Amino acid sequence: MAIMNVKALTFDVFGTVVDWRSSLIREGEALGKAKRLSVDWAKFADAWRGLYQPAMDEVRSGRRPWTKLDDLHRESLDKLLAQFGIKGFTEAEIDHLNRAWHRLDPWPDSVPGLTRLKRKFVLATLSNGNVALIVNMAKYGGLPWDAVLGAEVARYYKPQPECYRTTAALLGLAPGECMMVAAHNGDLGHASEVGLRTAFVPRPNEHGPGSNRDVTPARQWDVVAKDFQDLATQLGC
Amino acid sequence: MAIMNVKALTFDVFGTVVDWRSSLIREGEALGKAKRLSVDWAKFADAWRGLYQPAMDEVRSGRRPWTKLDDLHRESLDKLLAQFGIKGFTEAEIDHLNRAWHRLDPWPDSVPGLTRLKRKFVLATLSNGNVALIVNMAKYGGLPWDAVLGAEVARYYKPQPECYRTTAALLGLAPGECMMVAAHNGDLGHASEVGLRTAFVPRPNEHGPGSNRDVTPARQWDVVAKDFQDLATQLGC
Repeated sequence: MAIMNVKALTFDVFGTVVDWRSSLIREGEALGKAKRLSVDWAKFADAWRGLYQPAMDEVRSGRRPWTKLDDLHRESLDKLLAQFGIKGFTEAEIDHLNRAWHRLDPWPDSVPGLTRLKRKFVLATLSNGNVALIVNMAKYGGLPWDAVLGAEVARYYKPQPECYRTTAALLGLAPGECMMVAAHNGDLGHASEVGLRTAFVPRPNEHGPGSNRDVTPARQWDVVAKDFQDLATQLGC
Repeated sequence: MAIMNVKALTFDVFGTVVDWRSSLIREGEALGKAKRLSVDWAKFADAWRGLYQPAMDEVRSGRRPWTKLDDLHRESLDKLLAQFGIKGFTEAEIDHLNRAWHRLDPWPDSVPGLTRLKRKFVLATLSNGNVALIVNMAKYGGLPWDAVLGAEVARYYKPQPECYRTTAALLGLAPGECMMVAAHNGDLGHASEVGLRTAFVPRPNEHGPGSNRDVTPARQWDVVAKDFQDLATQLGC
């Protein structure tokens, strides 16, 4: 079986490992309460995430030079603060809110599952999040990565193939020795085109209740697991 | 005190965290015994390390394009096998010996010291070793890095300033928020020129018994510790 050769698992992070939406809502509500604001923070979180792909597209297309995700997040945040009519934040408060992305909560199975998987595999991030963001998030949530790689190190945003290829190369592995783990069929499709093996772990609550995005595997991925504990079991950890 | 601002410790690895010389001798002797060879493996290890700086100089000078340390090690190894008259190794055996650099033993205080330091600081490697080498070594020896950065990610070998600067930048930190930890006065001097804080941890046995290289601090570094446990104590961990 092809997955016998897998030496490293490469992880999508936002949505797959951490629950960005609930965490942003939590951070927004805490700040909103302190500042006595009336804001729909769920709407705010969705709008912020909504600006994610268009912001990266500017970089992917070459229309702007490499810009790390912290800076793209900040530009989107500035737009949204204006759009939602939120005023009176200090620079330090805006920066703190922007770094909410560094303080996203892991799904309940993430840390115990990764801890099991780490015994047998190299665990690397293959995220569009910049290194500092992913490192700080790992400290915050106790995520036991062996290596923080992905977009900023490759200087290409997913799903550009160089992002997957460079991550495998930095690990000293052929693409087929890496398995992409993601809650998103699209990410797995692009990883697969470059030769990575694939594991789908659906996160039905990523976009909040009632969402129907990526709840089932779109193709026959190498592994389909219900969470990271199940993934560890299926991979013999 | 300036070191109050330090958020990340960036580590030299070869010699500072791991005992490359004893480990290479151990690997050489095991292979030599299996192949019934009579080789002075201490001499071999020193000769291999002796080709380290000249090999990187070719890259630093721009005379050759970026080449990762695994490949430089391999070229040096091929030369030394000829020079020492060692014959009859298969390609797999030569590759295994080359990867002895992925299986270097930590000094006895390294893992317990790093484990304490990790509670308070981001721990990143700032080594000339390539990512796969450092990741595999961490798996082998249980080194709890938060991030594997340094030369291959920066695409500059130490002591070129870009290597230190890029590592700090990827951590999202100013140079003064990083403290370089090394057993080598030269490394600390170059880190200091770029603005990093400095911690000297002498490893008097790095070059074998009777060596007098780097046994004492050449300047008044921010911290001088006798090992990583002492470093943890001095940094309040």
